[in-house]
Amino acid sequence: MVTDRIKDFLRTTRSDEPFVVVDLDVVRDNYNRLARALPESRVYYAVKANPAPEILALLAKLGSSFDAASIAEVEMVLAAGASADRISFGNTIKKERDIARAYTLGVRMFAVDCPEEVEKVARVAPASRVFCRILTDGVGAEWPLSRKFGCVPDMASNVLRHAHDLGLEAHGVSFHVGSQQPDTGAWDRALEDASTIFRTLADQGIHLKMVNLGGGFPTRYLKEVPTSEDYGKAIFGALRRHFGNQIPETIIEPGRGLVGDAGVIRAEVVLVSRKTQEPDADRWVYLDIGKFGGLAETMDEAIRYPIRTPHDGERTTPCVVAGPTCDSADVLYEKTPYDLPVSLTIGDEILIEATGAYTTTYASNGFNGFAPLKSYII
Amino acid sequence: MVTDRIKDFLRTTRSDEPFVVVDLDVVRDNYNRLARALPESRVYYAVKANPAPEILALLAKLGSSFDAASIAEVEMVLAAGASADRISFGNTIKKERDIARAYTLGVRMFAVDCPEEVEKVARVAPASRVFCRILTDGVGAEWPLSRKFGCVPDMASNVLRHAHDLGLEAHGVSFHVGSQQPDTGAWDRALEDASTIFRTLADQGIHLKMVNLGGGFPTRYLKEVPTSEDYGKAIFGALRRHFGNQIPETIIEPGRGLVGDAGVIRAEVVLVSRKTQEPDADRWVYLDIGKFGGLAETMDEAIRYPIRTPHDGERTTPCVVAGPTCDSADVLYEKTPYDLPVSLTIGDEILIEATGAYTTTYASNGFNGFAPLKSYII
Repeated sequence: MVTDRIKDFLRTTRSDEPFVVVDLDVVRDNYNRLARALPESRVYYAVKANPAPEILALLAKLGSSFDAASIAEVEMVLAAGASADRISFGNTIKKERDIARAYTLGVRMFAVDCPEEVEKVARVAPASRVFCRILTDGVGAEWPLSRKFGCVPDMASNVLRHAHDLGLEAHGVSFHVGSQQPDTGAWDRALEDASTIFRTLADQGIHLKMVNLGGGFPTRYLKEVPTSEDYGKAIFGALRRHFGNQIPETIIEPGRGLVGDAGVIRAEVVLVSRKTQEPDADRWVYLDIGKFGGLAETMDEAIRYPIRTPHDGERTTPCVVAGPTCDSADVLYEKTPYDLPVSLTIGDEILIEATGAYTTTYASNGFNGFAPLKSYII
Repeated sequence: MVTDRIKDFLRTTRSDEPFVVVDLDVVRDNYNRLARALPESRVYYAVKANPAPEILALLAKLGSSFDAASIAEVEMVLAAGASADRISFGNTIKKERDIARAYTLGVRMFAVDCPEEVEKVARVAPASRVFCRILTDGVGAEWPLSRKFGCVPDMASNVLRHAHDLGLEAHGVSFHVGSQQPDTGAWDRALEDASTIFRTLADQGIHLKMVNLGGGFPTRYLKEVPTSEDYGKAIFGALRRHFGNQIPETIIEPGRGLVGDAGVIRAEVVLVSRKTQEPDADRWVYLDIGKFGGLAETMDEAIRYPIRTPHDGERTTPCVVAGPTCDSADVLYEKTPYDLPVSLTIGDEILIEATGAYTTTYASNGFNGFAPLKSYII
């Protein structure tokens, strides 16, 4: 969304290189809307989506908690003014020395998905709360999850009992329905599994308290997506269905959902050309930003960003869109070409919307000599 | 290749994070071997493969020229002590102001693949040499090229004539047979196309002088690859076949072929686990380095790096290998699992060989809070 504040910023900002600008007012609105839509859930912002200090400080002030993927992210959150009791170390793959360091810093909540990880936590973060991540099918998500995180629900009961036996607090269950998940029903299937684990362990005298509903709340790119209210209603309905009147504490971990539409990239058209002299040859549009400069999520053409040009409204033609590096994989849209104005030309400035999440951090560390994506937080 | 110098370095180096170490002696040997195998060709090192200042300085001293992908790479090469006449600005996608800046710095050779790019060069780098890149099929390469760079051979003749008409020196033709190309015959097909362009333009009074044979010289990962001598022989034979006794100047642009096997990554096993309790469940091995920390070339499982463990020689089992980030795409080998020792365990240090190319620069700028890959040049 190109807000008035972003428009003002763009008007007064010259830059030879592409950059992203993020409007904190949009982040604030997104946070408040999601918090209102799920009033019983605690929000843990997924720091990895955009760890800019200004964003972390704003969310800390608004009362958010934080989902950290690494010890470095734990430290960033503390530096932004949040206390350690608002941090979940949510990566199921952690070095034991990083768990120990987080514990020293006051973190007491850790994700696990196997007995081996439980044992690390038990050794260096005694009496901490752990939640076990379960596998979901991720069907419907635009950025699908693999089987990398989580275990099957049956195994999760044993993992949590193991944690309990080792003196940890078996706190709950987590899942992730897949990033950019437009199907509100996806939470229903995962909550059914979670409720089964709650009952299995209750029968053994272990009382879980929390369900971590994960992220997946989408940003609007080109297609319409359900509103926060739709998600809130669907999720609350599913909780009621599967947990009856014993609804557990819930937490959510939005990343993209809080910052995605708050950011806009300004980039430049470097070249417009064709590969053959046939009149109907594909038109190639090369930008000064690509897969290695911040638009990694175009991998497999997964996410289709809205692109605005100075010629919008004029006649369009399908274009292959590519980045500026000497890497042949640095092509953004080719299988499904992107309709862009015929009059688009070398030197034109374009805006790529909904780029507040997973752009600065996915950017490579100087691939082909191009500097990492510049970022302004306003 | 884990040389004695690398072994010594590893023995005396403690690190909490993964790192790559590159042995300059191997780079020197690779350069000398390739220069000997293709004595008539000038070597332009593809800086993007590894732009470490020590590598650039060594190659500058050895007499190498340089293929730069951006104005930043041009500046790195100059800083390493090479003169501007040893630089080719080899990216076909360049901002006009970057061409102008390179020209100011003394660069006089530019890649093009369309009339629009020729016009930029003519405007700001008058009388420079340009070479036109043509499309090749890239068949057989392990990291295949798309159609992103180059135009069809027919069109290339017109692009070069346009350059000539605008006062530039129509210097030659370039192609790239695909990175990590094990088929020495791939150069034959491209050289046939190049010779046709030479003849077409000669008929119009324009005499091209140079063929840029590109890169593609492979590094040995797990499979055997042809030697530099094999490539030299095959390429010289193809030149003779298509250009008769009027063999043009040739240049080659090795990147991976000079630095790939000079580097070794040391990493750590963070977790070994399973997703279900079935006795035959897949074994997952999580490392502290993955797709976003330097091993981007495992994308689509394209490149299969040799992995050494402290348990080599013991019984192995197929493992899914994944990186440490909270990103489900950060899985290195899953479709074709990787055989690793059953006794491999959390905390083990492993070596990933042949990682001197395209690791430091592909690494993300702090994704999930993990720092970019540390690099030591010895």
